[in-house]
Amino acid sequence: MFTTRRYQHCAACGERVEYRMPSDDNRERAVCTVCQQIHYENPTNVVGTLPLADDGRVLLCRRAIEPRRGFWTLPAGFMELGETVAEGALRETQEEAGARVELQGLLSMINVVRAGQVHLFYRARLLDLDFAPGPESLEVALFHFSEIPWDDLAFKTVRATLEHQRAGRPELLITDV
Amino acid sequence: MFTTRRYQHCAACGERVEYRMPSDDNRERAVCTVCQQIHYENPTNVVGTLPLADDGRVLLCRRAIEPRRGFWTLPAGFMELGETVAEGALRETQEEAGARVELQGLLSMINVVRAGQVHLFYRARLLDLDFAPGPESLEVALFHFSEIPWDDLAFKTVRATLEHQRAGRPELLITDV
Repeated sequence: MFTTRRYQHCAACGERVEYRMPSDDNRERAVCTVCQQIHYENPTNVVGTLPLADDGRVLLCRRAIEPRRGFWTLPAGFMELGETVAEGALRETQEEAGARVELQGLLSMINVVRAGQVHLFYRARLLDLDFAPGPESLEVALFHFSEIPWDDLAFKTVRATLEHQRAGRPELLITDV
Repeated sequence: MFTTRRYQHCAACGERVEYRMPSDDNRERAVCTVCQQIHYENPTNVVGTLPLADDGRVLLCRRAIEPRRGFWTLPAGFMELGETVAEGALRETQEEAGARVELQGLLSMINVVRAGQVHLFYRARLLDLDFAPGPESLEVALFHFSEIPWDDLAFKTVRATLEHQRAGRPELLITDV
């Protein structure tokens, strides 16, 4: 059973937590031994885009940070409080690739259970070619699908999303990696 | 800007946190004043189903717990670590309605930004009619769409998902409430 067990101390009062099953629950949670507050741990969303130029090329970013520094990825990152999935996908595309896009529909929803993540990618159209690497990218470039560095992709979710787009299937890809 | 600011103390060492922008970040995070650990807060997923009987009726649960006790809802709840979106939707359907279903595709993805949530509902087929309320439900019942208690629904995301199904649209509903 996957669990992060991030808590040793209570985020509210700072005292020790213990992992135990609350009376009205069916799994172990971090429960404060003093104030009794329960701290829940849940999966997080990683949101991004597959940006396409009008000539069919796809935009990829080469990662400047770990994990998978030096490998190619689609622009994506953790969804933040205060935004929608779409807003997060647009923000990450701007932050990592300096790229302005319009979203064209959800392309993939991929469960990464071992990491406690759900990856959500939108298909997107590049509005112009004025992109540039942000602080988390070494470079940003356009690739025809036949030219994609398939052996140097950063993540399985990126590969699955690219392959789904290449196959030209209109339906949402839902899968697990 | 929505933020929960759940942390007063460090979950790792128990000392005080302060909300400030880490040097390689662009928004404020809970940072421990002693061990410097950063605690991220991100949206959570609520996952569930719209269960349909073979005669076209939809299964609804009347909530036994707050918020919205006594109002009708689709079976749904927080996605847990260690499961996929689909597994969470099946689990919640079992826990809240005692219902066994097979999933038939993702029906809706609804951003609830003010709550820091994304609601994901699968269309599902009831495998039998042996359902029964779980501890979080007062009752479970089947409704023709014309009989749904529209004024007594618990959540806007439930209403939007039911309306989308009633309209018979095949595409995924993506919206915000």
